[in-house]
Amino acid sequence: MNVIVDLTVVPIGVGVSLSHYVAACQRVLEEAGLKTQLHANGTNIEGEWDEVFAAIRRCHEVVHAMGAPRISTIIKAGTRTDHAQTMDDKVRSVRDKL
Amino acid sequence: MNVIVDLTVVPIGVGVSLSHYVAACQRVLEEAGLKTQLHANGTNIEGEWDEVFAAIRRCHEVVHAMGAPRISTIIKAGTRTDHAQTMDDKVRSVRDKL
Amino acid sequence: MNVIVDLTVVPIGVGVSLSHYVAACQRVLEEAGLKTQLHANGTNIEGEWDEVFAAIRRCHEVVHAMGAPRISTIIKAGTRTDHAQTMDDKVRSVRDKL
Amino acid sequence: MNVIVDLTVVPIGVGVSLSHYVAACQRVLEEAGLKTQLHANGTNIEGEWDEVFAAIRRCHEVVHAMGAPRISTIIKAGTRTDHAQTMDDKVRSVRDKL
Repeated sequence: MNVIVDLTVVPIGVGVSLSHYVAACQRVLEEAGLKTQLHANGTNIEGEWDEVFAAIRRCHEVVHAMGAPRISTIIKAGTRTDHAQTMDDKVRSVRDKL
Repeated sequence: MNVIVDLTVVPIGVGVSLSHYVAACQRVLEEAGLKTQLHANGTNIEGEWDEVFAAIRRCHEVVHAMGAPRISTIIKAGTRTDHAQTMDDKVRSVRDKL
Repeated sequence: MNVIVDLTVVPIGVGVSLSHYVAACQRVLEEAGLKTQLHANGTNIEGEWDEVFAAIRRCHEVVHAMGAPRISTIIKAGTRTDHAQTMDDKVRSVRDKL
Repeated sequence: MNVIVDLTVVPIGVGVSLSHYVAACQRVLEEAGLKTQLHANGTNIEGEWDEVFAAIRRCHEVVHAMGAPRISTIIKAGTRTDHAQTMDDKVRSVRDKL
């Protein structure tokens, strides 16, 4: 089952600057071979369900290992069975109607 | 790794009434032996990361099999390494300060 | 326009214990006269759109004034025009199908 | 108070193709003069709190007027008082650490 995910990882208890942790998570996603698009409020990810969620779990492990005692993560996950759709398809589909 | 999750499953393309699908997903979570608390905007879940996310995947499979061609899901996932915390602890911790 | 909201306010840069801030926000919502239900991952709120969102803005102001330099908030907002629905209706509608 | 928002509007009860509705909401945001960045799972928005949330309310009104009886929206809202930060700053801050 293919999934398109939007991932926002918020480490808690490590101060106000979170970009080192977000970058570490971004590297986890890339090392997992997942297609990703970083944006201002998260990272969009496209891939097989199990691979995507294994990488998200790995993000939590890595960010905890970096010293964050608590993590609050938001995941939007979209699946569909009617037809295949990529992240680029989704943006193009809206842009075509503007 | 223990996780506390808030899960909202939104089936798309099956009309305006979604409670049959939400109930089916609720049964999946209960059959998985997870501790759950249904609320007005989702279901809180407490358990081992892999068991919780396997059940969420199973929700998508079941809701698609019921006829939903598209599903949009929101997951809040909280983990912590400083001390164990249950869903009831989280509510009590706020209530004690009101 | 009536709205049912799920609100999760995450103060950043104030350490790992967040319940004082969440309780302050809860008081803001109650002082605004809104109907609320606290749960393990947030607070459900029912009310007129403008009153609900004014109270959420006030939460940010109060939590910043308590010393949080950064806040990351998640809001789920549901509106419908087909018929009126309360938070209790939503839970009952799922429970009836279990 | 400045806010950086991620907005995902999901119309319910209008079938499986949602891009017409998302495009209409995108036009509302642009007509409001807000800075926006469309991505695969939503739209990032930067602006004054009241202007941003007035535009989000207008999105709900417009999408209901287009025929959607029910809307489920996800908003991530970030505010900070320590220093000004744009959407581009947030992405650059992570990219610099990759």
